[in-house]
Amino acid sequence: MNTWVHGAAGSLYDLDHLPYGAFSLGSEPVRLGVRIGAQVLDLGAASHALRPEWTGLLDVATLNPLMAAGPQVWTEVRAWVTELLSEPEQRADLTLHPVEDVQLRLAWDVADYVDYYASEHHASNVGRIFRPEQQPLLPNWKHLPVGYHGRAGSVVVSGTDVRRPSGQRKAPGADAPTFGPCLRLDIEAELGFVVGRSLPLGTPVPTDEFAETVFGVVGVNDWSARDIQAWEYVPLGPNLAKSFATSVSAWVTPLAALEAARVPLPAQDPQVLPYLQETGPAAYDVAVEVELDGEVVSRPPYASMYWSPAQMLAHLVVNGASLRVGDFYASGTISGPAKDQRGSFLELSWGGTEPFVAAGRERTFLEDGDEVVLRYTAPSASGGRLALGEVRGRVVAGDVP
Amino acid sequence: MNTWVHGAAGSLYDLDHLPYGAFSLGSEPVRLGVRIGAQVLDLGAASHALRPEWTGLLDVATLNPLMAAGPQVWTEVRAWVTELLSEPEQRADLTLHPVEDVQLRLAWDVADYVDYYASEHHASNVGRIFRPEQQPLLPNWKHLPVGYHGRAGSVVVSGTDVRRPSGQRKAPGADAPTFGPCLRLDIEAELGFVVGRSLPLGTPVPTDEFAETVFGVVGVNDWSARDIQAWEYVPLGPNLAKSFATSVSAWVTPLAALEAARVPLPAQDPQVLPYLQETGPAAYDVAVEVELDGEVVSRPPYASMYWSPAQMLAHLVVNGASLRVGDFYASGTISGPAKDQRGSFLELSWGGTEPFVAAGRERTFLEDGDEVVLRYTAPSASGGRLALGEVRGRVVAGDVP
Repeated sequence: MNTWVHGAAGSLYDLDHLPYGAFSLGSEPVRLGVRIGAQVLDLGAASHALRPEWTGLLDVATLNPLMAAGPQVWTEVRAWVTELLSEPEQRADLTLHPVEDVQLRLAWDVADYVDYYASEHHASNVGRIFRPEQQPLLPNWKHLPVGYHGRAGSVVVSGTDVRRPSGQRKAPGADAPTFGPCLRLDIEAELGFVVGRSLPLGTPVPTDEFAETVFGVVGVNDWSARDIQAWEYVPLGPNLAKSFATSVSAWVTPLAALEAARVPLPAQDPQVLPYLQETGPAAYDVAVEVELDGEVVSRPPYASMYWSPAQMLAHLVVNGASLRVGDFYASGTISGPAKDQRGSFLELSWGGTEPFVAAGRERTFLEDGDEVVLRYTAPSASGGRLALGEVRGRVVAGDVP
Repeated sequence: MNTWVHGAAGSLYDLDHLPYGAFSLGSEPVRLGVRIGAQVLDLGAASHALRPEWTGLLDVATLNPLMAAGPQVWTEVRAWVTELLSEPEQRADLTLHPVEDVQLRLAWDVADYVDYYASEHHASNVGRIFRPEQQPLLPNWKHLPVGYHGRAGSVVVSGTDVRRPSGQRKAPGADAPTFGPCLRLDIEAELGFVVGRSLPLGTPVPTDEFAETVFGVVGVNDWSARDIQAWEYVPLGPNLAKSFATSVSAWVTPLAALEAARVPLPAQDPQVLPYLQETGPAAYDVAVEVELDGEVVSRPPYASMYWSPAQMLAHLVVNGASLRVGDFYASGTISGPAKDQRGSFLELSWGGTEPFVAAGRERTFLEDGDEVVLRYTAPSASGGRLALGEVRGRVVAGDVP
């Protein structure tokens, strides 16, 4: 099956991908679209012309109504869009906008946001940097996916500038903290999962219900203020070090488009408790690139993550927590075993002690004006590759209150 | 000024209080009400009859539209309700429902939920119980209000049963964790603050903007699974130990009703950084009672809290985080200096080692069937007292997935 959209066949946004986003054009209302090649199919317009029963799902500003409609409708809408974009006779009824002409918005209303810490290489590196005399992994790490709740209200769409946060930090040996702009501003290259299902309190989600619960996948940059974090995080975890901004891609890749990217999880030893056990390939072979000021500085492999997305989801609600359409969880920093596969500047510069070179200069943490782009690609169903939405953010100086 | 509502004058819900809630009656839609004595004034009906321009704020299922209208409208609506309930000629146009006839609902859509740790006595007790060889307070504790993000989707209204959570916990000396029902289920008696203002990223809220930012105050029980917490919380803080349920009172007391309860904050030493400094009395003299199975087991005094609500709010956004109408933050466990002023069973039973007596039996942590009621009273403008909404919850056995 081929698409009639010029330039889309064989691209990273071919018919086997079809990610969703929310967009506006000038002062028109925000509605949903699907990316095909370098174009955006206007789902608001298409639903009015061809499927009026779906306007309440598609001519709306967020993915939440479509997600709430459930996995059968996800499948039907995806099949319909595939048909629209593959059968040339549909062409006359459709509106395509060049992607550079639209303003992309945050594609869904984020309910709760949970961030995990699922890379063994990342957690081990952090342990070695901060607690060099101890075992790098803490005793709980291989028994449960460690995570915490982040700030849903500070999730922003790719392209949003990120203001350098201010806060308290204490210099080593100083008696008291000082207040001012973060001095160790960092990224965390992550993958995120958007939940499309509401469940009341007390309902478990076994790992084999992952595909009917998670609607899609996004790229995530969990910006982190390392100096603020070091001072605040004991004993209740990171708070202001993370809550100033979390960037996500504008495009949400349907989970169905990543079927060809499924690979076995790295071996888990010790064996995990029954509620975390998986059958079948539970990891995803997503290749990540971290670009700083136009230069790729790292290539973290998502396939190397210790905990799977289905395990993170099963853990999230095993205590009886409810789930809402729009809930969002992210993997934590993706770091591979090699030095050039680390997903944070904390690791790339080994706590700031080993500067790395980007765009011809030695670097440790982020400077004002830096632009970071995270790119994600994965095998696609047709044997090629697809690109998840990029996550782009430029650091701007913050006003200090 | 007196109210014409029978039995309300001199009660804990007199004209100087007027808390808001959301209620339904049978199968009718949820709308807002105000409590007066043992009655609920139907604000949905009153707005239709007398103030049609406010039906979009009052004949709705949550407080969010009213909160979003801003502090001037909060004042106008409160003045109007005061007039309705004090001038007998208004009586014919109004509908009152006995409070026992209505079903009370969660009064607002919770955006983000942040829980603090603002009681010095509580934090010191926890330090002594868990780290007996060290200083009870960690180095950051007196410099910033330590807090973390909780799960907004698991906030439930008073009266909702609380299922015992399951999860991983590791017995002392065991090699590996086991999975099962929480063995050390606890309460945290707290006070909570509901934000009625949206602010974009990068907007500080100085402590003197507290009253125009916080709409009202609720009682909070932050149920906690101590065994799950002990195993999971390093290094990212509590997660599943808290995310299964947080109970809040159905009634939201307007901040204006607590003006007479303002008292000076206990002295802060060392001096706090400028963004946390306060002028004027910043604490609230709210008396709390913790009732277990019908017997009061503790009387925590909110006035003894180290950090003020305005300081917690200023801290929350000083890094540039945005604020949304419906954001919610709580104080953390309220514990006073005395043994019978401790706001958690962890402290009342000193980590389970010193059982206390309630309803004739020795107790440590919560058993299935236990009912906990938190009650809150404060001085009111007329020289009497008012009662914030109670927080009631019964522990029921959880299904183990």
